[in-house]
Amino acid sequence: MKFNFKAIISILGLLLILNGGFMLLCLPVSVYYNDGQWHSLLIAGICTIAVGSIAHLLTKNQKNGGLSKRDGYLVVTLGWLGMSLFGTFPYLISGQIPSFTDAFFETLSGYTTTGASILNDIESMSEGILMWRSLTQWIGGMGIIVLTVAILPILGIGGMQLFVAEAPGVTPDKLKPRITDTAKRLWLIYLGLTALEALLLKIGGMSYFDAINHSLTTMATGGFSTKQASIAYYTSPFIQYVIIVFMFLAGTNFTLTYFGLHGKLKKVWRNEEFRYYFGFTLGFAVLITSVVFIVTNNTFETSFRESLFQLVSIVTTTGYVTADYTSWAPLLTVIFFMLMFVGASAGSTAGGVKVVRHIILLKNSILELRRQIHPNAVLPVRLNKIAVSSDITFNVMAFMIIYFMVFALGSVLISALGVDFNTSVGAVVTCLGNIGPGFGKVGPLDNFAMISMPGKWILSILMLLGRLELFTVLILFTPYYWTKH
Amino acid sequence: MKFNFKAIISILGLLLILNGGFMLLCLPVSVYYNDGQWHSLLIAGICTIAVGSIAHLLTKNQKNGGLSKRDGYLVVTLGWLGMSLFGTFPYLISGQIPSFTDAFFETLSGYTTTGASILNDIESMSEGILMWRSLTQWIGGMGIIVLTVAILPILGIGGMQLFVAEAPGVTPDKLKPRITDTAKRLWLIYLGLTALEALLLKIGGMSYFDAINHSLTTMATGGFSTKQASIAYYTSPFIQYVIIVFMFLAGTNFTLTYFGLHGKLKKVWRNEEFRYYFGFTLGFAVLITSVVFIVTNNTFETSFRESLFQLVSIVTTTGYVTADYTSWAPLLTVIFFMLMFVGASAGSTAGGVKVVRHIILLKNSILELRRQIHPNAVLPVRLNKIAVSSDITFNVMAFMIIYFMVFALGSVLISALGVDFNTSVGAVVTCLGNIGPGFGKVGPLDNFAMISMPGKWILSILMLLGRLELFTVLILFTPYYWTKH
Repeated sequence: MKFNFKAIISILGLLLILNGGFMLLCLPVSVYYNDGQWHSLLIAGICTIAVGSIAHLLTKNQKNGGLSKRDGYLVVTLGWLGMSLFGTFPYLISGQIPSFTDAFFETLSGYTTTGASILNDIESMSEGILMWRSLTQWIGGMGIIVLTVAILPILGIGGMQLFVAEAPGVTPDKLKPRITDTAKRLWLIYLGLTALEALLLKIGGMSYFDAINHSLTTMATGGFSTKQASIAYYTSPFIQYVIIVFMFLAGTNFTLTYFGLHGKLKKVWRNEEFRYYFGFTLGFAVLITSVVFIVTNNTFETSFRESLFQLVSIVTTTGYVTADYTSWAPLLTVIFFMLMFVGASAGSTAGGVKVVRHIILLKNSILELRRQIHPNAVLPVRLNKIAVSSDITFNVMAFMIIYFMVFALGSVLISALGVDFNTSVGAVVTCLGNIGPGFGKVGPLDNFAMISMPGKWILSILMLLGRLELFTVLILFTPYYWTKH
Repeated sequence: MKFNFKAIISILGLLLILNGGFMLLCLPVSVYYNDGQWHSLLIAGICTIAVGSIAHLLTKNQKNGGLSKRDGYLVVTLGWLGMSLFGTFPYLISGQIPSFTDAFFETLSGYTTTGASILNDIESMSEGILMWRSLTQWIGGMGIIVLTVAILPILGIGGMQLFVAEAPGVTPDKLKPRITDTAKRLWLIYLGLTALEALLLKIGGMSYFDAINHSLTTMATGGFSTKQASIAYYTSPFIQYVIIVFMFLAGTNFTLTYFGLHGKLKKVWRNEEFRYYFGFTLGFAVLITSVVFIVTNNTFETSFRESLFQLVSIVTTTGYVTADYTSWAPLLTVIFFMLMFVGASAGSTAGGVKVVRHIILLKNSILELRRQIHPNAVLPVRLNKIAVSSDITFNVMAFMIIYFMVFALGSVLISALGVDFNTSVGAVVTCLGNIGPGFGKVGPLDNFAMISMPGKWILSILMLLGRLELFTVLILFTPYYWTKH
């Protein structure tokens, strides 16, 4: 079977048109604040739409037919890369990020909802450009919802088919270029929650601009802030609690939120991944709060709020910061490092490994001990009381192993640039997990400006790999993908 | 089926008699050097033999029958623990290590061939006691040969059955308390190589005492030295090269060495694990030498020797030191950290994950990408040109996942004692991998004296877990092991 390149280009064209449209959405902001950048956004938007339209129109009248699985991998990877390439236009044309490497890093960090930034002085950026920066994350979040609900399960990636049974109206079918009904429903929730959070943040005292920007990047579990100090800038406990709640929601399977909003709370609670996600967060909140309360001079409320905030921010892979989690105690530094391998729920906008995979790995590890004693016994992992096929467990383990391999290789490459041990492993774990802040010189109070150009490209690849559940991208690098079929 | 406790106690008794016998072997050393400790060794040896004899005699006349797999796990774990418990006697009775925790840590570090030490002034210890210290490692190495060749494959632990087909005269059978013929042949090689290395080290300029001690701990991939500065004390390149060669041999599957000595070199080279082990060492030797030559003022020969020495020492999990691998460059610090997860060959005295498991994980990861495209294709991992059953691949992945889980949990526990990030992860990775030196405050120039008492116990458990391929010990902690059957 050949690649359906025309259909692929057609879809990429559509994505660019959408992308350009979002750029133009920032125009009114630029004009309102009179930041002098409306022309940059206009040119960027028009160029992007033009290229997208040409690509789409040239391939429109072809019989596109369906896309095969193989086409799917290419569409997804090229989609994210193409969006990021054109997404640099507003930065480059405005000159607010003059280097292409920096602009690409910042844009990909947006679309992958990572939130790692190279900006040293965010407050000096123009409002229109900052709006665009936040929107890249929000678009990335939208993309990831389609991806996990409608595309990855069909591509059979890393156990993502696990939660599909829960999704309303999804049937494994040939990958279709149209966005499924499910995705539309989930987008509505995504949009609704974004609006609600913006409103609450405004009530809490943020400006409309900051409220909208932060709600866009919260729901995407992105973590870009309009302030250099991130959420630490806002001392209001109300604002911080609102963001904690919405980060947690953004890290929840959107399908479950859909059921929850339809009053089916039992269905939500019956979901094992949600119970683990909830229980895990609660457990670590207690542990971290206790330690912070003991080692700092903070009040109990401050200890609790700061602990919960950093915890939820890291676990949901958002990456907002209100306190330096590397300064509390060695125990917490180690714990936060480990937490970066967790990731929130599948079917949310969170990156990383995902709780559902950890449940399977944990249960399987215990079962494997039993299997040693009785090698012939059939002992499948059970999730939501249903036996998980050994193929899926096998795949989840392989995913985790490859995740560690990529982590190891990435750390070696970054350290080869002369970056110290802690900064290297910290930068890699946070980029691969689509989180944002890391350790060492890319810790919660720092940014990625100090990383050299080659380092930024390596970290960009890691962000993409992590966001697209590894396999989607790695498959493209096997000769097998391109030759035999 | 019930536990065959009598047979278990009978074997443990035999092990103690053997243990006591080795203590008495140190007596002549003590007398020769007139170090004033002969009575400590005599008392320790007699006590150990007495307890062992009583245990053995009381259970001797019972119909022992065979041991079941379940009995096997218990024998192995209790065997290592019991040996270590009684192995503390010479330290405690002589007062040279007055604290029980320290003595137990040092002894278990011996029997597990780890080589992590709590001694701050090795040269001040009496010769008889140092001889005992080196012997614990050599005994541990002997034990591990029996374990991997004759016991673990039958217990079905973590893919260790993979190389059994290669072993001469091994047939999977009910675990028998007698030592198999194979083990005897391999011990002969172990003994022979130890003697040969001692001779070469003596020729190189070491005293007889130092030569014997170092050859005992080299062949065990243990790494205890009679010098506080480890092998850095000996500036002779000849001595260092001899040790490099013997460390590499100790990290080679003893079955292959057996074939090699019988002239079947083709059989050795056809073994995939050996080829990877050899190629891997060669590749990293080139890389590390290049970096060391560039960043230091060393000559090329010194760069090469120091690089190769630390590399082989870490990969074979020996843990001797001639240079501080954490001081060269960030890249090498990261690489040495990663190397601690490698381990040498299965069927050698090396600890850690083992090369054969990494081969399977690597091959399977690539195949898993192909399986994404064709989920129904049967694509087994091939080792030595033979398809590996998916059960084994499954088991190897589960082993690796559990290894990381134990590593994570261990790091959290050590850091909870207030130990900094680098020291925590460094201490855990080196103890779990049975290596010796770590990072941070337990780096290659330091020792484990600074770790608090609870920390030493946690690290002891990790050494035992690593040495016994995780499963053997962990199985004992499942309620399933003790109840159902």
